[in-house]
Parts: sequence; C-alpha cells; structure tokens
Amino acid sequence: MDEKSLSLWSTTKYHNHLKETEYDEIAREAAITIMINGEQYATIVCTPNDIRPLVLGFLASEGLIRSAEQVLKLTVDEDKGFAYAELSTWVEFAERTERWIGSCCGKSREFYLKQDVKTAKTIYSFIQFSAEQVYQLMADFDKKAEVYGRTGGVHQAALASAGGIITSAIDIGRHNALDKLYGHIMQNRISLKDKCILFSGRISSEVILKVSKIGAGLLIAKSAPTDLALKLADDLQITAVGFVREHKLNVYTHEKRVTGDPSHRDVRFSN
Amino acid sequence: MDEKSLSLWSTTKYHNHLKETEYDEIAREAAITIMINGEQYATIVCTPNDIRPLVLGFLASEGLIRSAEQVLKLTVDEDKGFAYAELSTWVEFAERTERWIGSCCGKSREFYLKQDVKTAKTIYSFIQFSAEQVYQLMADFDKKAEVYGRTGGVHQAALASAGGIITSAIDIGRHNALDKLYGHIMQNRISLKDKCILFSGRISSEVILKVSKIGAGLLIAKSAPTDLALKLADDLQITAVGFVREHKLNVYTHEKRVTGDPSHRDVRFSN
Repeated sequence: MDEKSLSLWSTTKYHNHLKETEYDEIAREAAITIMINGEQYATIVCTPNDIRPLVLGFLASEGLIRSAEQVLKLTVDEDKGFAYAELSTWVEFAERTERWIGSCCGKSREFYLKQDVKTAKTIYSFIQFSAEQVYQLMADFDKKAEVYGRTGGVHQAALASAGGIITSAIDIGRHNALDKLYGHIMQNRISLKDKCILFSGRISSEVILKVSKIGAGLLIAKSAPTDLALKLADDLQITAVGFVREHKLNVYTHEKRVTGDPSHRDVRFSN
Repeated sequence: MDEKSLSLWSTTKYHNHLKETEYDEIAREAAITIMINGEQYATIVCTPNDIRPLVLGFLASEGLIRSAEQVLKLTVDEDKGFAYAELSTWVEFAERTERWIGSCCGKSREFYLKQDVKTAKTIYSFIQFSAEQVYQLMADFDKKAEVYGRTGGVHQAALASAGGIITSAIDIGRHNALDKLYGHIMQNRISLKDKCILFSGRISSEVILKVSKIGAGLLIAKSAPTDLALKLADDLQITAVGFVREHKLNVYTHEKRVTGDPSHRDVRFSN
C-alpha cells in the first residue's frame, strides 16, 4: 500500500435516512512539471507515486526517447512537483505538436501527431491466451486493485505473461498508468514478446497508440472501446479485448491471439 | 439518438461456453484540429457531434474567450476534422502554457497554468438541493445516458435546475463533455445562478476548474473525487457531491448546498 496515492477527507454521507460525517480515503492528485534540458516541456496531473517511471514512460510515449539510457540524468523534486530530465536527444516544439495529415487521411492509419508516426509500431507477436487465461488474469488484476477499491478514483495498468501478472501501476489518469507501466518496462528491460497488457479503463485511440509504442500485441481491458481505437488496433495488428467480466469477454481485432477451449461452441457454425 | 456518436463493429464474443460473432455498437472517436486566426492551436480527440459548442467551450475553458461574441467566425469542416475560429482576442502561446507557481505554493489554491488563474472563479451561489432532489436528478441523468448504455464508452455532463435537466452533452472524453455543456450554456446565455452540473465521471482538479469557469456552485458526480479536486472545490466554494447511488451520496465540500429532510437522522449528534 503506497501512502502517496491516498489521503483522508472529512465527508458528509447521506445514506437512506442517515446523515453521518466520517473520514474517507480519497485518491491523491498532484501536478508534476517536466523540464527537459532546462526548458519547460509539460505539466502532468497525476497520482504522485512512481514519478520516475512516469517521466520515463511519458518521454518514450512522446517519442523523445527510445530507451532509458537516453535519459542522462533525472532528478525529481517531489515537494515542489518538478522533474528535471537531461536527454541526449531533443526535438523542437513545433515539430512535436504539428498534426500529421498523411495522404491516406480518412483511411485507417490516421495518426494525430508527427511523433506518433515515428513511434507507433505494428506488432507481429504470435502469443496466444485462452479465454480462461484472460478471465484468470483479470481476476488477479482486480485483486491488485487495492487503491481503486479504497477510493474508486484510480486506473490500473499491468504487464502479464501466461504465468501471471509481472508488474503493475496505478494513476488517477488513464494514460499516466500506462506511462508508469512503460517506464517500469524500460527500467527493467522486460521483453514484450510473450506478454499482454491489462487495463482498467476504456480503449481509446491514445491507449492503443501507447500499447503499440510499448510493443504489446494483446490488450485486455475492463471497459468499452471507441471505433477509432479499433481501426488503429486493426491496422497496428494489436488484439483488443474489452468488457472482460467473470465469464465473458469481447475480442474486437486480430482474434487469433485469443482462443476458446474444446468446450466452446462456435455459434457462427452451429446453426 | 445522434448517429455521429455510434458506429458498428464486428465483435467476437466469448460468453460461458459460447463463441459468437455479432455487430456491436461502438462509441465513435475522431480528431478535431482547432485553428485560431490561421494558427494551429490544439487537436482534440472527441466524439464528433456538437463540434461547435465543443470548440466554444474549449476556447472558454482555455481562457481565450469569455463570451460567444468573442468568436467572430467559426467554420467546421467535419470531414477533414478541422475547426477554424476567428477571435477578437488572442494570446501568445508561451503565456498560456507556463506553469503558475504562486507564493502560496503548497497551500490550497494551487493552479497549474496562468490561464486558470485568470478564468477560475469563486462561486457565491446560494442554491440548495435536498438529497432527494439529487437522487431524482441523477436518475433523470441516467435515463438520458442512452449512448453510454449502448456503448459503455462515453461520458455525460448535464445542466439542471430544481425543475430537472435543461441540457446535456456526451463525449468519449470527460473534459470534452463538460466543454460541450459550457458551449451550449454560452450559446444560449443560460444563467448559472440556480443551476447545478451533473457529471458521469470522476471529480479531478481539471473537472473542478471547468465547473468553476462555467460558474456552477454545485457539482453532482457519479464517481470518486481526488484530494486536489476537493482542495480546489473547498477554495473555490464549490459543493462537490460524489458517489451518488439510488439512496446514497457523499458531500465533500461546502455541504450547505445539500440538505437532508426532517426524516434524516444526523449521526454526529445522535450518540
């Protein structure tokens, strides 16, 4: 239990015909301003734990670094909410934020920013998980979700292999949870070949882009996808699984990475 | 039902021992690039309906305009995903994004960006809603949530008075839903004096800042708050209500705007 992610707040509760005041556990939120080579780059609002992997993963998601080694120095001032990074590479601001409208605009691979074009990658992994394994991983994932259970206020992302969950991260921001996970993966040089990513939130285009940058071929999410996310997942060859419940799941793209077992009756062919 | 917010996707579903493939309704997602006075300002990923109020509300949230009249012209190219705004006012980029660290840093009013300091306002409204009214408004709000019910993929924000819901907006992005609502309010010059805002998502600092900019004194949310959001709500004199269920709610700040009824037993004094 990380005390950096929780605080207490005096709360007035109405419940049927009772009114009571008690201290509730609330998700913490803080701002971290990222300075790169002395220049102010971005301010992230986040759960103030795991700040180093968050900054690493954020820089990689933004396409500014490809490995932890490209960060020559990283100093975090938690009290003031600043992170100072020295990078061996650095791009101009205008180049980063320009919207990229390719000639294929309106077709499937519609990226927003030039950096995404450079860093998003098609995934060729051949991993397979059975529906049963997916249910089991999601059950393990839910058991880890202690802060969520206590506050209802954070998202969680985890990396797993067939053997179970390897590492996980939480944050009040969906994307931050994925960036923290990315940072952990980079710091520990974990190969993505036989891994999947579990995620508590919805599947948006930005989530798929992050999964692609991290390099995972299978995303298992608790919630719903958007259509643009699915078009990107289809194009980047990522298997997107959503709405995972106790004995239910939806596979939206590249379904080859999820398999039934002999007891599964395929309704398409059963009529 | 707005067809701009939904699309169909062929989905493989595992359910107990069945595997079936059918078309699911999925939340649509698209990118809108906002050009201001010919300059590229921002790209928003959103549900591509209500784009005009979205752009208006976004510009107001960013502190670039204070009324709809300051937008001299607004052209939307839905197919290409561009919105072209001509503003009578315009600020430099550097001024907008600089993090504002006041002398009170670490105290309650910790804003992130200079623009927030200019546009967030303390709310002095004297409205009161009973717990019963809050339950009823949330029930009406849920009934409106048709797209959410069909896709699980969008957030909803609504403006309500004691008489019921006046207008609402949906988006895959929490903040976009609030910006669309803000745009509707500006377009129709609705007074906020006796109104509250209903919101399907969590209460983050950015949500409280938007509610403050819109000018509402009471926020009624389905989900959990963060501590920074509550510090801001406390300071800006916004009543933050969360976790509204059928006969349950939590009041986190300025509880004067929510009242019990004679049948409510106040547990603080009952011992």
